[in-house]
Amino acid sequence: MRRVQIVEVGPRDGLQNEAKVLSIEDKLRFIERLAQAGLKRIEAASFVNPKWVPQMADAQKLYPRLPKREGVRYSALVPNARGMEDALSAGAGEVAVFTAASETFSRKNVNMSIQESFAAIAQVVALAKGKHVAVRGYLSTCFGCPYEGRVDAGRVAELAQRLLALGCFEVSVSDTIGAATPGDVDRVLDAVLARVPAEKVALHFHDTRGMALANVLRALEYDVAVFDSAAGGAGGCPFAPGAAGNVATEDLLFMLAGMGVETGVSLDKVAEASRFLESVVGRQLPSRVLHSPAWSPR
Amino acid sequence: MRRVQIVEVGPRDGLQNEAKVLSIEDKLRFIERLAQAGLKRIEAASFVNPKWVPQMADAQKLYPRLPKREGVRYSALVPNARGMEDALSAGAGEVAVFTAASETFSRKNVNMSIQESFAAIAQVVALAKGKHVAVRGYLSTCFGCPYEGRVDAGRVAELAQRLLALGCFEVSVSDTIGAATPGDVDRVLDAVLARVPAEKVALHFHDTRGMALANVLRALEYDVAVFDSAAGGAGGCPFAPGAAGNVATEDLLFMLAGMGVETGVSLDKVAEASRFLESVVGRQLPSRVLHSPAWSPR
Repeated sequence: MRRVQIVEVGPRDGLQNEAKVLSIEDKLRFIERLAQAGLKRIEAASFVNPKWVPQMADAQKLYPRLPKREGVRYSALVPNARGMEDALSAGAGEVAVFTAASETFSRKNVNMSIQESFAAIAQVVALAKGKHVAVRGYLSTCFGCPYEGRVDAGRVAELAQRLLALGCFEVSVSDTIGAATPGDVDRVLDAVLARVPAEKVALHFHDTRGMALANVLRALEYDVAVFDSAAGGAGGCPFAPGAAGNVATEDLLFMLAGMGVETGVSLDKVAEASRFLESVVGRQLPSRVLHSPAWSPR
Repeated sequence: MRRVQIVEVGPRDGLQNEAKVLSIEDKLRFIERLAQAGLKRIEAASFVNPKWVPQMADAQKLYPRLPKREGVRYSALVPNARGMEDALSAGAGEVAVFTAASETFSRKNVNMSIQESFAAIAQVVALAKGKHVAVRGYLSTCFGCPYEGRVDAGRVAELAQRLLALGCFEVSVSDTIGAATPGDVDRVLDAVLARVPAEKVALHFHDTRGMALANVLRALEYDVAVFDSAAGGAGGCPFAPGAAGNVATEDLLFMLAGMGVETGVSLDKVAEASRFLESVVGRQLPSRVLHSPAWSPR
């Protein structure tokens, strides 16, 4: 694998789990820095009920102000048709839907069964088609559920295939609680890639147990070439007890650079975005590379 | 790789970099818990000048009191003949010597050139032979030096071979400052394994930049089967600015267990040792698994 695409989810998956709610201006400053770093895919907001996710309450106002840059795609998370209508009226050109590989997690996270969430996704996809809006699919808890424990890889594969069949251009196979080891990556990717092509698969690792980079390394051997990460390692999931943030974009970039894998992203500039974010949220973010002495991995 | 040997370096590499100096009784409690966890190779102390490493000043008294357990080997770090004489008189059955792959680091760390350190090692080996004491060799800064930057892999290979030729039974190829990525593991192991057999190589990763587990994963592909780690991720190096602790034994065990690799070590019991250590040193240790919700990796 000589080139990898990074989907920066800090402004959404990251910020929605920070206690501090950022102003629109600070969100824009953060996102502008991410785009300057060369990140071409940025999940910028979610259009969800502000009662549940107050951090994202200003998505409607934020979206039209996102910095326009050649080749940068902003995605918006939408849980249902109502969120999709909001995202469309805000001008979103790409959205992300989500379901889970664990029934219990689906109910706790969105108060829907997996079957019901697929019905909601079908509505979103129908709305997207008329507007030529691309739809990404997240599949949560693919490597373990905080309520059900281990999740069957065959079930993950089946649901991934269904998301693509429904019209998603890519499915982000997600380790919501950071439970996966490279052994689980083997198990899940063996099943998933038997049903869907690698170029339609992204991986989304939380770093709860420090396994994320090892898991990425293993996934590279399967020719998966799209990875989600968050600047500074911000993030987590309020409905997944103990889940830590996404793998840090800086740490991922450091590893990939050291392996000669191209990303087109500047580690130094992502670190600038993270330091800005730290100054705003008022806490040290978990990225290790961000807080280590400068070192050129190549 | 179906079986991996862990060399627990927490009582030495870990404790020598903790600000809090443990009492002999607490050291023994820590080590007893590590042995109970199934760790068979434990680096228990170093016989160095207490002026430089006050944390190890009681090695002479500690050593005879180490818990005797079937199959458990305790190693002691010795920098020179004087340290070796102290270690022998304390009853050490295995020692570890060290040199560096970087000239500047060697001078800053032990105030000797690499050539001078090999002379010191030869004296240690000579003393060991008469007593049938096994000698392990550490080679520091194999993946980068805080003063010189990148280190030539051919030089690492040459020095690793010299350590073995001198009488070391194993060489621990060390990433003292946690600079390595899997790309560097390829680079260094390609060179080292062209000169020495894999079964005589151990790897020693510090986790400064969060790369250690990915590096272990890559090294497993080369059939390297001995890895150094420290319970809780304690440790570091006072002479390597910014260097963080060793990779945490718990995190390593979690990954290996998830891959079906046997170690014979109980993660839960290592975590008990780490929690005891945390209670004594009064700080949270960096292991991620230690501080995550319980999860069975298999």
